[in-house]
Amino acid sequence: MEVEATRTPTTPTRVHALADGRVVERPDRLVTEEPMEIRVHVPGHVPEALAVTMRTPGNDFELAVGFCVTEGVVHSPDDVVSVAYCVEGGAHHANIVTVRLRGMLADGLPRRSFVANASCGLCGKTQLDDVELRCPPMSDGPRVAASTILELPDRLRDAQRVFDSTGGLHGAAVFGVDGALDTLREDVGRHNAVDKVVGRATLDRRLPLASSVLMVSGRVSFEIVQKAAMAGIPVVCAVSAPSSLAVDAARRFGQTIVGFLRGARFNVYTGPERVDLDA
Amino acid sequence: MEVEATRTPTTPTRVHALADGRVVERPDRLVTEEPMEIRVHVPGHVPEALAVTMRTPGNDFELAVGFCVTEGVVHSPDDVVSVAYCVEGGAHHANIVTVRLRGMLADGLPRRSFVANASCGLCGKTQLDDVELRCPPMSDGPRVAASTILELPDRLRDAQRVFDSTGGLHGAAVFGVDGALDTLREDVGRHNAVDKVVGRATLDRRLPLASSVLMVSGRVSFEIVQKAAMAGIPVVCAVSAPSSLAVDAARRFGQTIVGFLRGARFNVYTGPERVDLDA
Repeated sequence: MEVEATRTPTTPTRVHALADGRVVERPDRLVTEEPMEIRVHVPGHVPEALAVTMRTPGNDFELAVGFCVTEGVVHSPDDVVSVAYCVEGGAHHANIVTVRLRGMLADGLPRRSFVANASCGLCGKTQLDDVELRCPPMSDGPRVAASTILELPDRLRDAQRVFDSTGGLHGAAVFGVDGALDTLREDVGRHNAVDKVVGRATLDRRLPLASSVLMVSGRVSFEIVQKAAMAGIPVVCAVSAPSSLAVDAARRFGQTIVGFLRGARFNVYTGPERVDLDA
Repeated sequence: MEVEATRTPTTPTRVHALADGRVVERPDRLVTEEPMEIRVHVPGHVPEALAVTMRTPGNDFELAVGFCVTEGVVHSPDDVVSVAYCVEGGAHHANIVTVRLRGMLADGLPRRSFVANASCGLCGKTQLDDVELRCPPMSDGPRVAASTILELPDRLRDAQRVFDSTGGLHGAAVFGVDGALDTLREDVGRHNAVDKVVGRATLDRRLPLASSVLMVSGRVSFEIVQKAAMAGIPVVCAVSAPSSLAVDAARRFGQTIVGFLRGARFNVYTGPERVDLDA
């Protein structure tokens, strides 16, 4: 597999900083945001653009592979032949990543949920049903101790070193049920951070993540729940609250959602049987 | 113009709440997230789906019209004949909104930036250039006092009543240069909240918003800067930091970005000439 380009997750800039009535012009660091196109190349076909995502450079191959998994294009690491930056006229394009697949998938290439494709009267409903069909079955376990869950926000923050320098990055981390950190990834887009951790697990042949807990730094949208379900993750924890659609989806998928996880408290929104509230 | 359906921005649920070692099962409220399809209907053509966005119901017509403005489909309120929910077989579909246009636009229907459409080597660059071409020229003024800017976060929060009940909504507000609140809108998606305030201004025939300040509750991504530029908004303020691409874009568009706006401090990232740091 090709060596990945080294890009910086932060970009230097200069700001006029006002603090307590005094103004100084000083250097600062911004979180890097750049568009990345994800292409899928099936043998005998021309490479097809699957999506353009605004992302923080770094772990681009994980992002591309993870996106393919969480959008249902790839179901197993065996589906992927290679991941590489696009090369045209001898030049690498560090914002275009091509995932080469072994063969055509039975159900073709799905489109992103952002893309206008729903027909009248089926909008939303179709998308939800679609995901349910494609989702791997969720295992009954694991069971996670409340005391372990309460420690996850601090563990996530401790691991988010980049966060300290810019204040602008979302974090997503996969933990074991004992609270041990497996993988942390950051991105300007919450969904990209999730795709990166799922991509890492895919490349390491560890799918489905049936004994893992996903912790995200912000809130839980439908998209996060959907991506977690596609990777077989049974428990999703978040610092903030889930949306109504996230809760609906998690209930259908048989997932556990823990939210408002801060200090000595949290709420269990779905799947309370996976949380040992007395431990 | 059709009367808009009344939908609730929050949805009741039940949670197992753990706090300081005690567990109670109690009612809670979730921020509502539902997909909405935005269609554009040009006379003599079939209605075309422009995008599906995950949004918080409420102000749906503003969202649809605002999206059309910030994506360059609509340049003036005169372009819009009507905004209505889709009706099929006598039934209203409250998650599909159709914007009827007066005539075909010279440059056709653009696709959303999420949608895969960039060709190799042009990705990102093309998108940025594209926006510059379509952006209305940015006015030199206005000039905003630092003391006014420092008050905006509190004014935004005070106006965000829904935030208190769910903790999950992004806010976007348009203020005058004197700090007077014009319009506040909330949504599960930051970009939707911006589209809603722009849509309101469009329907009220107040575009471009050349003497306004946009304040957003989170960080400033490229998309937020682009949307503000399309509405002619010269100053964008945010509680958190902008991304590298947001700063690049604002510099090209001639916009002012103020970020890390909290307590007695903020940073000016671009366009410092519009901020009176001594006032």
